[in-house]
This record gives sequence, C-alpha cells and structure tokens, in this order.
Amino acid sequence: EHLISWDPVAAEKGEYRHFMQKEIHEQVRSLTDTLAGRVDFDEGQIRLPQLNLTPDLARRIQKIIITACGTAAHAGMVGKVLIERIARIPVEVDIASEFRYRDPIVDQNTVVLAISQSGETADTLAAMDEGRKRGAVLWSIVNAIGSQAMRIADGYISMQTGPEIGVASTKAFTAPLVDLYMLAVLLADLRGVLDSTRRKQLVSDLRLIPDLVGRCLDRENEIIPVAREMKYIRNMLYLGRGINMPIAYEGALKLKEISYIHAEAYPAGEMKHGPIALVDRDMPVLAIAPQDPWYEKMISQIEQAKTRGGSVIVVATEGDTRVPELADHVFWVPPTPWLLSPVVTVIPLQLFAYHIASLRGLDVDQPRNLAKSVTVE
Amino acid sequence: EHLISWDPVAAEKGEYRHFMQKEIHEQVRSLTDTLAGRVDFDEGQIRLPQLNLTPDLARRIQKIIITACGTAAHAGMVGKVLIERIARIPVEVDIASEFRYRDPIVDQNTVVLAISQSGETADTLAAMDEGRKRGAVLWSIVNAIGSQAMRIADGYISMQTGPEIGVASTKAFTAPLVDLYMLAVLLADLRGVLDSTRRKQLVSDLRLIPDLVGRCLDRENEIIPVAREMKYIRNMLYLGRGINMPIAYEGALKLKEISYIHAEAYPAGEMKHGPIALVDRDMPVLAIAPQDPWYEKMISQIEQAKTRGGSVIVVATEGDTRVPELADHVFWVPPTPWLLSPVVTVIPLQLFAYHIASLRGLDVDQPRNLAKSVTVE
Repeated sequence: EHLISWDPVAAEKGEYRHFMQKEIHEQVRSLTDTLAGRVDFDEGQIRLPQLNLTPDLARRIQKIIITACGTAAHAGMVGKVLIERIARIPVEVDIASEFRYRDPIVDQNTVVLAISQSGETADTLAAMDEGRKRGAVLWSIVNAIGSQAMRIADGYISMQTGPEIGVASTKAFTAPLVDLYMLAVLLADLRGVLDSTRRKQLVSDLRLIPDLVGRCLDRENEIIPVAREMKYIRNMLYLGRGINMPIAYEGALKLKEISYIHAEAYPAGEMKHGPIALVDRDMPVLAIAPQDPWYEKMISQIEQAKTRGGSVIVVATEGDTRVPELADHVFWVPPTPWLLSPVVTVIPLQLFAYHIASLRGLDVDQPRNLAKSVTVE
Repeated sequence: EHLISWDPVAAEKGEYRHFMQKEIHEQVRSLTDTLAGRVDFDEGQIRLPQLNLTPDLARRIQKIIITACGTAAHAGMVGKVLIERIARIPVEVDIASEFRYRDPIVDQNTVVLAISQSGETADTLAAMDEGRKRGAVLWSIVNAIGSQAMRIADGYISMQTGPEIGVASTKAFTAPLVDLYMLAVLLADLRGVLDSTRRKQLVSDLRLIPDLVGRCLDRENEIIPVAREMKYIRNMLYLGRGINMPIAYEGALKLKEISYIHAEAYPAGEMKHGPIALVDRDMPVLAIAPQDPWYEKMISQIEQAKTRGGSVIVVATEGDTRVPELADHVFWVPPTPWLLSPVVTVIPLQLFAYHIASLRGLDVDQPRNLAKSVTVE
C-alpha cells in the first residue's frame, strides 16, 4: 500500500513554494476580476455602484485625503497622481498613524479614502473615525468583505483579489492601483472634466492590464539569476520619479519585509541633496525608468549613480536601447500606457524581493516581527 | 625668528575643527538674530515686512504648498504642522523635483512657499516658476541675499544665519523652523483665528529658543562617547511622530550625508507595517521622544524596538524617568513648548552625525558626491 500524506496548506499553495509566489502569479486573475462588471468597454464607462458616488457628490468634493499604512499607502501615492491628473481634484496622502493625531483640516467637502487589505488596520480605522467626526465623506478600498473599514464607510470599492495569505502584500497592492484609476476616471466623468474620446481611451487601456502583467510574470526566470547574484547584499537604494516614485517605495518595502535587507526608496530628484553620498560599490541602486513622462530625468539619474560606482538594476520598457548601455541588469516590462505603468513596474520588484528571500532560505510568508493585519495601534 | 603661518580658512573656523561644528554652535546666535526686529515681545506681535503679507492676502489664501529639496524640505514638513495647527490653513509639502513635473493643482489663492539656503537650487526655482505660471502667490525663505529665489518671490523671509559653508546644513535648518513658526503666528493673527492670550503666549515662547538651543549644545560632551561607541555602525533607523517626525528625517539625512551610514527615517507608526522586520542587533534605532503630544505613542514604539534586540538611543526631555529605563543612551533636551520642540531635538542629532563623521576621519565639510548648492537639475 502506498500512502500519500495530505497537507492542506501545501495543497493550497499548489505548484508554488510559498503563498507569496502564488499570490504574485494570481495577479493576472485578480486584475481580470478587478475589471469584471465594473468596466463597460463598449460605452467607455466605469461602474462602481458600492461607492454611492452621485454626480452631486462628485461635483462638491474639494479635496480627497487618502489614508493608509505600509503598502496600501504606496498605492495611495499612485492614486494621488491618478486622481489629480485625471479628475483634477487635489489629493493628500497621509499615513494613518499620522493623520489620526494631526488635528487635520477636514470638512464635509472632503473625502477621506481609506485603503486597507484587511479592513481592520487599527490606525486606518481610527483615521476614518477622525474623518467622520469632522464631517468628511468616508470611502474605503478593502479586500476583506464585511470588515470594519467597509461597514463604516459611506461607500467602498472591494478588491477582487481573494484572500491574501503572505504577510508581504502583492495582489492586494495592484488591485487598488486599478481601483484608484477607475475611481479617477469615474470622478472626472461625473465632474465633466473628461471629453468622451479621452474617457474612452482611458477606459480602453484598462483592457490591456491583465495581459501586460502576465507578460511581466513570464519573465520571472530572468529575475532569478539577478536575485542569486545579489542575495547577500545588505543595503539598496530604490529610485523613481512621478507616478513610479511610489513603486520605488513599494519595491524597497518588499525587500525590507521578507529579506531583511535595508532597502530605502527616494524620489530620484532628491539624490543630489544627500543620499548620493551613500552610493558606492556596496550600495546597489534599483531605478524605475519605464517610458513615462519622467523617463529622461531617470536616465540622467541612472548615469549619476553609475558614475559613483554602484551596481545598477533598471526596470525598463521592452525595446529601450539606452538603459541596457547603462545598467548592470535590466528588468523588462512591456510598453504600457503611463498612467497604468505602476501596475507593471511593481511586478519585477515583487519577484526580485521574493526570490532573494527564498534563496536566503527565509520564512517568506511569515517574516519576523510582522503580522498580516495590524489590528493594534 | 618665529614664523606663524596664516591660514585664512583655519582662522575662520576659529576654535572648531570643521565649519559644520562651528555652524552648529552658531545656532544660538543665528536664532537670536532670527528673532531680532521681527518679534515684538511687548505687544506679542510678529513683523515680517518683506513678506508683503496684507490682511486681505492672509484671508484669501486657501492652500500653501511648501516646496524644497533635502534639508529644507524637512523644515517644510515641520512648517506644515505649525501652519495647520496655528493658522488652520491646509499645507502640502512637495519635493521640488516632484512638484515641477506634477502638473500641480494651483490657483491664485494658493501660496507656493519655497525654502532654499542658497536661493539658487535649480529644482526649487523651477518649482517657483511652475507656481508663477499657474497664478500662485510666491514666497521664499532664503539665506543668500539677492539670490534668485528672493528676487522672483512676491515676498520673502531672509534667514538670519550668515553664510553656511558646511555642505551638511545645520543653522540653515533651524532658522527656517523659527521663520515658519513666526509665519504661522502672523497668518493666524491676520486671519483672526488666534485670540490675543494665545498669540501672546506663542510669541513669548520664542524668547526661550536661543537659550534652549544653547543648553542642548552644552551637552555636546555627552554625545561624543555615544558617537565613539557607534562610529562603525552601518545602518540605523530614525523614528519620530507628529511634529518631530521630520526631525527623524533630518537626523537620518545628516548621518547619510557626512558619515555615509545608511540611516533611514520612518514615521514611527509605520514600523509595524514593514520596517520592524529590519530591527535586530545590527540595526540600532534612534527615537525622538520629547514631551510633545506624541510622547506616549513613542514610548510604546521604543519598547517594541527594544524587544527586537536593537540598541536604542532616545532624544528625551530632561526629567523624563521612563526613557532612561528603556534606552541604551539618552540625548537630553530641555523642556520646550512642543510647537518649538523640533528646534531643540535636532541639535543632538546634528552633533551625533558630526562626531561620528569626525571620529571616522571623514571630510565633514565636503562629503563625497555632494555640492553645497545644487544649481543643476
């Protein structure tokens, strides 16, 4: 008789070694689900009925404050660019633990938009309470159905990612990026600041996303040798500008969380104001330089880092001929409309952090000192 | 015959080994000069005539965007707390290299306030141009008289610090802190949101500043042994919350700039959302925990860092009995009204960075890769 042991956890992970790797690969599906039922490609319209966003409300919003912690705050930073560019509403992003004690300037024409995977993050809930007390409209983008952040909100967008097990968030990062993009388009449409040609283009671009993310995932095997080469690094600088600046923060956070490497992110334009003093052979640099409006500036910053002797990895768009001449390694992403580029540029950074941690033999899904949902202050 | 060689640079440094140390010690004088002629202690009034701030203008301002680079941006982050708390005007702080390419939402009721020691920082000037194009009111806080950032502004506050030679800015950091405090009080007064008792108290508190800073400097000898013990560290985390959160950023930047130590700052409440995974014996933590409204929260964060095995230095207020039980080392600052506390808490961090760099034998005044004034993009 041949007994097959049955391990329900292993079974759930399927072909993957860790939940994090599985969840990284689930992003094609989670992003497909994120669009399903919300995007009318024929009409070029966005539908987010659970947000309870009326044309009246859309027109009276004077400010949106996105509040969140950790990875969700990085999604919020991208959301600021999207909402300001597309809907022309001023957006502030405020770390929840700061916002709640800030005595913030908020009124009934302010939306406080909370982003939380679990919907139970203590600081984020407290920030929502603070917004409520001051008369703000409360919205949330939440993964866990029925969670507190969903229940106390005036409207919400639910992430369509399914449960996320890995402590380092991945699919619950890209879903809110797309949610915020859809929100920006919907707000712009309801406020009448978007002509129908541009609206249809913005909506149509969404259709590309699952495939583009899949193409990034197909390149996983190109990332593993770089992770192997760099697995013993102690420090790293992540640089980005504009809409991809928050992706530098997110990439660095992944490496911190699961690999215990001291990775720090910077808006690339700040390098000359201090951090470039750190760059030498022991401080590799990862630069995010896809074909977006900040590309030329990033090239110049990569040149500066290279001059200082650091090893440089660059996230670049397929077909780019300048980056390969400068970079020690390139993580390729497919050409993507720039307002959606963070959804693809983050994928190689998730894979890079994952493989470094995995090659180091670390407990990827349960890194030391961290909990999946921070329900205490 | 006995020849005494005359070195004009050495003469200028006087008793100090480096300009940076001299400039740290000049802060008692530069802050005295910062107040001189601007603070009417009898009437409890602030006078900033070069700002051209009329009551009409004060009342129509709907938003202030502070734009700056590096150290000056950290001063701006403190300014956000001061202006929002005291004058109740919403403030955004935006890195100049980001603001200029952001397509920012700015109108004629927005003030763009640039902070620049040299007044010639390329990104900051470009950010001012961007504000001008969109009809904003332009203000600047500048040290170099007659510089571009002063000339193109509608109004300015000149730092009263004298020339700063050390590349790592010190006295040109504390001066704008006090300038921003005075600006907040003046704005609040002109907008009628400050009763005269509170205004007089806020103004009267300014008188304490030079002496309080002097008392921090008197403790330099307590900082040197800590710098000696830690001079070979490779990484460090700086933590703060609320009004002292920007001081964590500033302290970390000083260490980066002149000691080439990878010091990173975090809003302390974010620790549990990632960075605490880094904390172990090789990652000391510096926490800023004076008697301000965030003190209790900081104590709890210090406890968490301590549990993870990291060595902990705490900036604390004289007389505090809880911090010494938790911390490996304490940098003491005198009791200070909390809205002014950043002016004192930064002093031990300047001294700490200076002495580490000096003990390492590094070129403190001209760190590698950095220029005093970044006049190119």
